[in-house]
Amino acid sequence: MVPLARELTRAVGGDAARHVHLGATSQDIMDTAAMLVSRRAGAVIRADADIVCAALAALSGEHRATIMAGRTLLQQALPTTFGAVAAGWLNGVGTAAQALDEVIEHRTAAQLGGAAGTLASLEGRGPAVAAAFADELGLAEPVLPWHTDRGPIVELAGALARVCGATGKIAGDIALLAQTEVGEATEEGGAGVGGSSTLPHKRNTIAAVSALGCAEQAPGLASTLFAAQVQQHQRAAGPWHAEWLPLSRLLGVTGSAVAWLRTSLERLAVHPERMRANLDLTDGFPLAERVTTDLAGELGRLPAHELVQSACQEAADSGRALAEVLTERLQGRRTGSEIASLLDPAGYLGATGAFVDRALAAHAERTARRGTGPAGDPARNRSRT
Amino acid sequence: MVPLARELTRAVGGDAARHVHLGATSQDIMDTAAMLVSRRAGAVIRADADIVCAALAALSGEHRATIMAGRTLLQQALPTTFGAVAAGWLNGVGTAAQALDEVIEHRTAAQLGGAAGTLASLEGRGPAVAAAFADELGLAEPVLPWHTDRGPIVELAGALARVCGATGKIAGDIALLAQTEVGEATEEGGAGVGGSSTLPHKRNTIAAVSALGCAEQAPGLASTLFAAQVQQHQRAAGPWHAEWLPLSRLLGVTGSAVAWLRTSLERLAVHPERMRANLDLTDGFPLAERVTTDLAGELGRLPAHELVQSACQEAADSGRALAEVLTERLQGRRTGSEIASLLDPAGYLGATGAFVDRALAAHAERTARRGTGPAGDPARNRSRT
Amino acid sequence: MVPLARELTRAVGGDAARHVHLGATSQDIMDTAAMLVSRRAGAVIRADADIVCAALAALSGEHRATIMAGRTLLQQALPTTFGAVAAGWLNGVGTAAQALDEVIEHRTAAQLGGAAGTLASLEGRGPAVAAAFADELGLAEPVLPWHTDRGPIVELAGALARVCGATGKIAGDIALLAQTEVGEATEEGGAGVGGSSTLPHKRNTIAAVSALGCAEQAPGLASTLFAAQVQQHQRAAGPWHAEWLPLSRLLGVTGSAVAWLRTSLERLAVHPERMRANLDLTDGFPLAERVTTDLAGELGRLPAHELVQSACQEAADSGRALAEVLTERLQGRRTGSEIASLLDPAGYLGATGAFVDRALAAHAERTARRGTGPAGDPARNRSRT
Amino acid sequence: MVPLARELTRAVGGDAARHVHLGATSQDIMDTAAMLVSRRAGAVIRADADIVCAALAALSGEHRATIMAGRTLLQQALPTTFGAVAAGWLNGVGTAAQALDEVIEHRTAAQLGGAAGTLASLEGRGPAVAAAFADELGLAEPVLPWHTDRGPIVELAGALARVCGATGKIAGDIALLAQTEVGEATEEGGAGVGGSSTLPHKRNTIAAVSALGCAEQAPGLASTLFAAQVQQHQRAAGPWHAEWLPLSRLLGVTGSAVAWLRTSLERLAVHPERMRANLDLTDGFPLAERVTTDLAGELGRLPAHELVQSACQEAADSGRALAEVLTERLQGRRTGSEIASLLDPAGYLGATGAFVDRALAAHAERTARRGTGPAGDPARNRSRT
Repeated sequence: MVPLARELTRAVGGDAARHVHLGATSQDIMDTAAMLVSRRAGAVIRADADIVCAALAALSGEHRATIMAGRTLLQQALPTTFGAVAAGWLNGVGTAAQALDEVIEHRTAAQLGGAAGTLASLEGRGPAVAAAFADELGLAEPVLPWHTDRGPIVELAGALARVCGATGKIAGDIALLAQTEVGEATEEGGAGVGGSSTLPHKRNTIAAVSALGCAEQAPGLASTLFAAQVQQHQRAAGPWHAEWLPLSRLLGVTGSAVAWLRTSLERLAVHPERMRANLDLTDGFPLAERVTTDLAGELGRLPAHELVQSACQEAADSGRALAEVLTERLQGRRTGSEIASLLDPAGYLGATGAFVDRALAAHAERTARRGTGPAGDPARNRSRT
Repeated sequence: MVPLARELTRAVGGDAARHVHLGATSQDIMDTAAMLVSRRAGAVIRADADIVCAALAALSGEHRATIMAGRTLLQQALPTTFGAVAAGWLNGVGTAAQALDEVIEHRTAAQLGGAAGTLASLEGRGPAVAAAFADELGLAEPVLPWHTDRGPIVELAGALARVCGATGKIAGDIALLAQTEVGEATEEGGAGVGGSSTLPHKRNTIAAVSALGCAEQAPGLASTLFAAQVQQHQRAAGPWHAEWLPLSRLLGVTGSAVAWLRTSLERLAVHPERMRANLDLTDGFPLAERVTTDLAGELGRLPAHELVQSACQEAADSGRALAEVLTERLQGRRTGSEIASLLDPAGYLGATGAFVDRALAAHAERTARRGTGPAGDPARNRSRT
Repeated sequence: MVPLARELTRAVGGDAARHVHLGATSQDIMDTAAMLVSRRAGAVIRADADIVCAALAALSGEHRATIMAGRTLLQQALPTTFGAVAAGWLNGVGTAAQALDEVIEHRTAAQLGGAAGTLASLEGRGPAVAAAFADELGLAEPVLPWHTDRGPIVELAGALARVCGATGKIAGDIALLAQTEVGEATEEGGAGVGGSSTLPHKRNTIAAVSALGCAEQAPGLASTLFAAQVQQHQRAAGPWHAEWLPLSRLLGVTGSAVAWLRTSLERLAVHPERMRANLDLTDGFPLAERVTTDLAGELGRLPAHELVQSACQEAADSGRALAEVLTERLQGRRTGSEIASLLDPAGYLGATGAFVDRALAAHAERTARRGTGPAGDPARNRSRT
Repeated sequence: MVPLARELTRAVGGDAARHVHLGATSQDIMDTAAMLVSRRAGAVIRADADIVCAALAALSGEHRATIMAGRTLLQQALPTTFGAVAAGWLNGVGTAAQALDEVIEHRTAAQLGGAAGTLASLEGRGPAVAAAFADELGLAEPVLPWHTDRGPIVELAGALARVCGATGKIAGDIALLAQTEVGEATEEGGAGVGGSSTLPHKRNTIAAVSALGCAEQAPGLASTLFAAQVQQHQRAAGPWHAEWLPLSRLLGVTGSAVAWLRTSLERLAVHPERMRANLDLTDGFPLAERVTTDLAGELGRLPAHELVQSACQEAADSGRALAEVLTERLQGRRTGSEIASLLDPAGYLGATGAFVDRALAAHAERTARRGTGPAGDPARNRSRT
């Protein structure tokens, strides 16, 4: 700061020169600069997050009825739709980006306290100068100087690490869906970008992997910022200095993670036929409980359960199709086509459609509520923190 | 969950028995329980935080004019007041507790998605049941099941780690102020609690140290929760399981940190005479710039600066009082009492009074806005997350 | 400590009573106890790690020639063997467990320094008493009291977190191999343990997932211990207290992670036929470069490359088998069986056999070198730290 | 890597060109480069650590008899010597630097495994090439490729974070000792470097604070590396990429922390007279137990204890000197000079002298054992990891 203040004084010249840096301490400038940088970085992150959310909203609507396996503990469980999956991604990253936005818009606060946080050298005009300073910069005016109250830093850290997590979750799922043996979604980056003609089976999800590689750096960086809150007296001896690089890196990895996810989604090819083929690997077993329910009225619950369980066992042991075994056993009670219908995943999608609609509505509401942001209108950020 | 569902089924009995756990998966119960536990823990934390804030508000008002050294990098810098110091503590922990409250009140969401997040076994009634479930429990109704969207967990983690940081900052300052050589504030826990008649110089700030010991565990725990956001597909294979203990411990260390800080403040004795004596160790040097400013009009800025700097040098080299050297050098321009007045810290407290008032007003506003909380009226928590 | 010392004094009685706790401070007892607990926990971890290593060594030898896909970025790349995969697991967890062992055996140090680390109340006999104390407990005798030099704690933390990582890596791979669409290895825990007759497709790797859930808690806990090294003066005001629970939890999650991995391996079923079938999904493309190399001598490198690349392109575009296209194009130069041989993964396993042998030899060496451990012979741990 | 390999191929030319990057995958080059960079960074860190240790050894010897207060929980407890304090610092940072050295010298391993860790494209010569590769670079030859066994990375991470902790502990103590009210050690960096003529009371320990600011970034970075151990299959999809920046930053902050500590020690001025004056603030109370012990033989333990405790109480309540009260109460039993001698801290320094000697001997042994390091003689690093 010392050479900067000297150069500024020189550049300003005249009577104004003696007002350069008047009343301020180095930390005032550094903290305020960190907030301004965070706002600029935040605008970049938001722009990419907007594109990510738009892409996910489109995927969600488009694949509202695309049946695929829902997976738990990495195993196929019950059917779901890719629309519902994309709706979950959208809601996760959309709400995380919105929460970051709130912090960036309303909580990035100017810092002006002078050497010991009293603004003594501004005499009686300290608070007025601090208010004008915040106003000029479009930053929130804090109740007090926050030299050793690092709330604004950790709010930002938490919001950034959350965006990284939501981004990493989606990127991780894409990498899993693109596995050679799964192949339900792939990044199609063209020759030289994760694919090649000599290795046509290889669909490296370079962008998703890069997003993950960035996102996974956030928790450690955030923990450094959380730990640095214990700052001594009026200005700290170490913890403040420990914030500089982690905050900068955290903005960097968040921006990179979101940008890589955007790229991944731009390259994303969805393969509904593979989704369906993979789901068929489980041969209707996940829906066996529907048959039990269907029979419970006429057989009683327990006998129905035992009948179905025994059929499942036979199918699994013999390798015969479950529908075939059930049709055999339920002759006279249910036709083959009734059984096929009970075992059809398309009939067991629960609230997936409603969830897609809800996610899209919430997305639309977030988008509408936002309008122009802090870059567009700094005057909106007049709140006190 | 399996034995619990079995026991509940047995306990319920009759026709209702078949509705126990219907449509739910283990994670629904675990996540919802985690939210309910967090609300209960949050109420305990808030109750202690309220007492902490009330104590700090009282200290801040009471010591609005108690002069002490403002310290930067662990060195005395410029004068401040203990009222302003306590106001900074109040604002830090008060806003952190309020942010936690917001999360606890509005963001703790019910979880009900069934095995793959589709609520398929509830047939068309999934969303309606989920809404009723959230309502019954006084938890927010999420837009979608959040089995692998861990926003609610990390919002909580971030808010808890922030409270720990704000608490640790205060506890750390108390431990520093209580140092044998500083002695400006001490914990007076009575015989056997940090003090003893045979070691009357020893004022162990047991409570503040314990608060710090708890608070410093938060960043690592929070980082585990942030890292665990990358959860696979519809329900995760590891990261979800990795959340259980850290969330529980994070609630625990936050509650303990705040409770220990409460105890520390209950025991706190403030020693204004030591504050003043310590400040006098610096013999007016921090205020030398006021003399420069005062002389600048009649001497010109640069000559005034050089005169004062040379006087400081002489005082430092010779060990004479700065006031004495300045009086000698400024004979005919300023009287000894004018110089004493310029060097009097009481005249150079800047905005400390205003800052105390602002912090108290913000505290009053937070207190008023809150009123009864979630425990008092679950109906207030109807927001969708 | 105070009530414990009182009870011990009472229990000892007589003249000996006044020697209870003589010269010691609470931290001496707590730190020494932490080391003793760590040794006991370490013995448990080692016992499970030994079983894990033995199981992996057996798998590695047994599957030395079991061909499977080597996967990079979650995509099939080149062939490898399951023996080589298990050898990598063995080497990772084996060396991590050995490093932990070294720390547990040689670096767990007794603590005896008295209130300020000077052993003043033992008069001239301080170091002799400290040496006898360490000897009695079978702990290393430190050069100095380490009240605020936390090397012994963080060495342990690093070694434990490394074991967790090596364990988590294996568990993660098992969960991936067990995916419904991959099915190359599964946990066969029997009915009710990750599998069921009604959901025969579901092979939840409960044990591997639990191992991961434990392992993923280690980095955050370790970071708290690393951060707690900055301890003030002769005994710390907070950071030491912040160590207690994380160290205890870190021992816990490491022990649990290794125990769960042991269980996972006990349940592990390997499916070589699925490994081969999955590898065949890539239809020889990964080995196309072998054909290029084979032709380079007679055609020149570039023409050979272009010929093979063009064949690959045609096969990929048309969906025909690569071997078929190549046979057609290389008529007169190579027979169909020569081409089949070049594309046979069994001929392109590189050093997998040698690597299995090296991993088994290193394992045998580690096992032999160890012999009886600290529990067996405390006298072995006489090194000074 | 792709453009680098292309440029190298061009630069090499001729027949050799086709051997460039032969058999290697990008990760081989990146990991090996990371190890080479770590060795170079390690040499720089060691050089500064050597200077730090030499400075601490000199301080320890020089101040073997310099009495000061031993402090616990930031309170004066019992007397110690600054020599013993410096010996503790020396032992902490010396053993941490040695442990880092061990890792750098013996555990930095070459990486060569090819695309799937099988070295298939090197045909039968894989292990031989890998051995020659390691030899050429002076790196350890690993048992197996360690693409997804990150032991070498986390050993390094743990060792670096330990050095940071040991460095931060010393820096933190210096900052505390330099407090305005303590003044026992200061950084004398000259005008403009933490001090100024207008603020002669200000002794900002800029270097120590900067060391702390660097050191406190290590735990978060290390935790990211520990977490990144869970790498999938043969080469990872994210966690490996997450290592790059944190490892680089961790080397950076460790080097900076040690360099700043070196600077701090170069600037360090020790003030024995302030040490003594501060200790005298406690007026002999810490040594009261010596009087009890001295009287126990003739009065019995309990009466002796009660007499001394009552004298302490009176002194504390009345503000009179403890020696004076004791002399009055023990008239006929002990002379004033006998009492003064019992209360003299110089007689109650315990094993501080022995501890200084032990720390210096251990330091000498570490220095001797090392001799020339890896940079001097790469051939020494032939161990297999």
